[in-house]
Amino acid sequence: MAIELEQVLPKDIERRSFEIITEELGDTQLIPGTEPIVKRCIHTSADFDYAKNLVFSKDAVQKALDAIRQGASIVTDTQMGKSGINKKRLAKYGGEVFCFMSDEDVAIQAKTNGTTRAVASMEKAAKLNKKLIYAIGNAPTALIHLYEQVEKGIVDPELIIGVPVGFVNVVQSKELILKLEDTPYIIARGRKGGSNIAACICNALIYMLDEDL
Amino acid sequence: MAIELEQVLPKDIERRSFEIITEELGDTQLIPGTEPIVKRCIHTSADFDYAKNLVFSKDAVQKALDAIRQGASIVTDTQMGKSGINKKRLAKYGGEVFCFMSDEDVAIQAKTNGTTRAVASMEKAAKLNKKLIYAIGNAPTALIHLYEQVEKGIVDPELIIGVPVGFVNVVQSKELILKLEDTPYIIARGRKGGSNIAACICNALIYMLDEDL
Repeated sequence: MAIELEQVLPKDIERRSFEIITEELGDTQLIPGTEPIVKRCIHTSADFDYAKNLVFSKDAVQKALDAIRQGASIVTDTQMGKSGINKKRLAKYGGEVFCFMSDEDVAIQAKTNGTTRAVASMEKAAKLNKKLIYAIGNAPTALIHLYEQVEKGIVDPELIIGVPVGFVNVVQSKELILKLEDTPYIIARGRKGGSNIAACICNALIYMLDEDL
Repeated sequence: MAIELEQVLPKDIERRSFEIITEELGDTQLIPGTEPIVKRCIHTSADFDYAKNLVFSKDAVQKALDAIRQGASIVTDTQMGKSGINKKRLAKYGGEVFCFMSDEDVAIQAKTNGTTRAVASMEKAAKLNKKLIYAIGNAPTALIHLYEQVEKGIVDPELIIGVPVGFVNVVQSKELILKLEDTPYIIARGRKGGSNIAACICNALIYMLDEDL
């Protein structure tokens, strides 16, 4: 069997990929204004489930874009997520990306409190005193902690990207965030998600702003 | 609706997740010896497609374990992939993880040759003169280049992890690797994969060795 390669220039691969995704989505209804995010999640995973499982709170995208434009920073719960975010393009707006998961003090704090490093790193983030977007691709405990802190009025996120992946308390942690009424969120309902999805949602937002420039 | 959290200690979450995956796999047949890899891919993605799309060349796992035990290093095609690999545990066996994608000389080389940075970084890797496992989670061009270099006898990988994700030449690049007869490979057939999957296959291998200790 001969294997035929499609002739696409390196610079055109992403554009061509998005064309294919758009074609294959066909009549699937996406919420207006969320298309670049949904399509980038499919681009990152080749998984069309993201056309159905992403839930956006009212005006979440517009609020997130405003926050980034005003210099909001991003906190992730994995180094992988941090690694995947386009930090150079975020920096144009004044934001930076934080991940405290490997910090010594976070490890100690988690051990002392009998909690996860993800929770301890959320606590550290809350002390930054910055406008923050939380991009959670791994740890449901981080998401549950965020929910509690928002409910108590201790943190006030610009956006919660809640896309942990997995089998233990992942579904539940996302359902908690969906109960929040005044906090913008983007949630991948169900078990799916991941650091790659968290990073790609951040990038989709950053690239939307770049196109607005 | 009340949301009930499962009470699982942080240290037990991974074990419990693997139990759930095993339960849900039910009667699905996995190739003996590949189970920890397949299950970790499902754990990383919550996508049971990996029970069906992963293809292992004959004795690929055993050969990969031998290579790591003998100090093989890993080359990835994304910083995210590098970031996700457990470098500390790999280092116990003498290996390290390389990603040349952000290197200045790679960018120049790609521009000069009208190729992708992924290809230029594979060329740089080939000059390392080390035992190498290639973990390709993003760039089909890297995989196609590897295929050509193996066919020409220029590189002799210990293992090719071929799990790029996407829509343009991704499927074809993997089919090329499947044609190789003497090179061990682990391939996610079809469009799915990603840097997270590439990293998790590396980690599954490293953890299998750790359990052997």
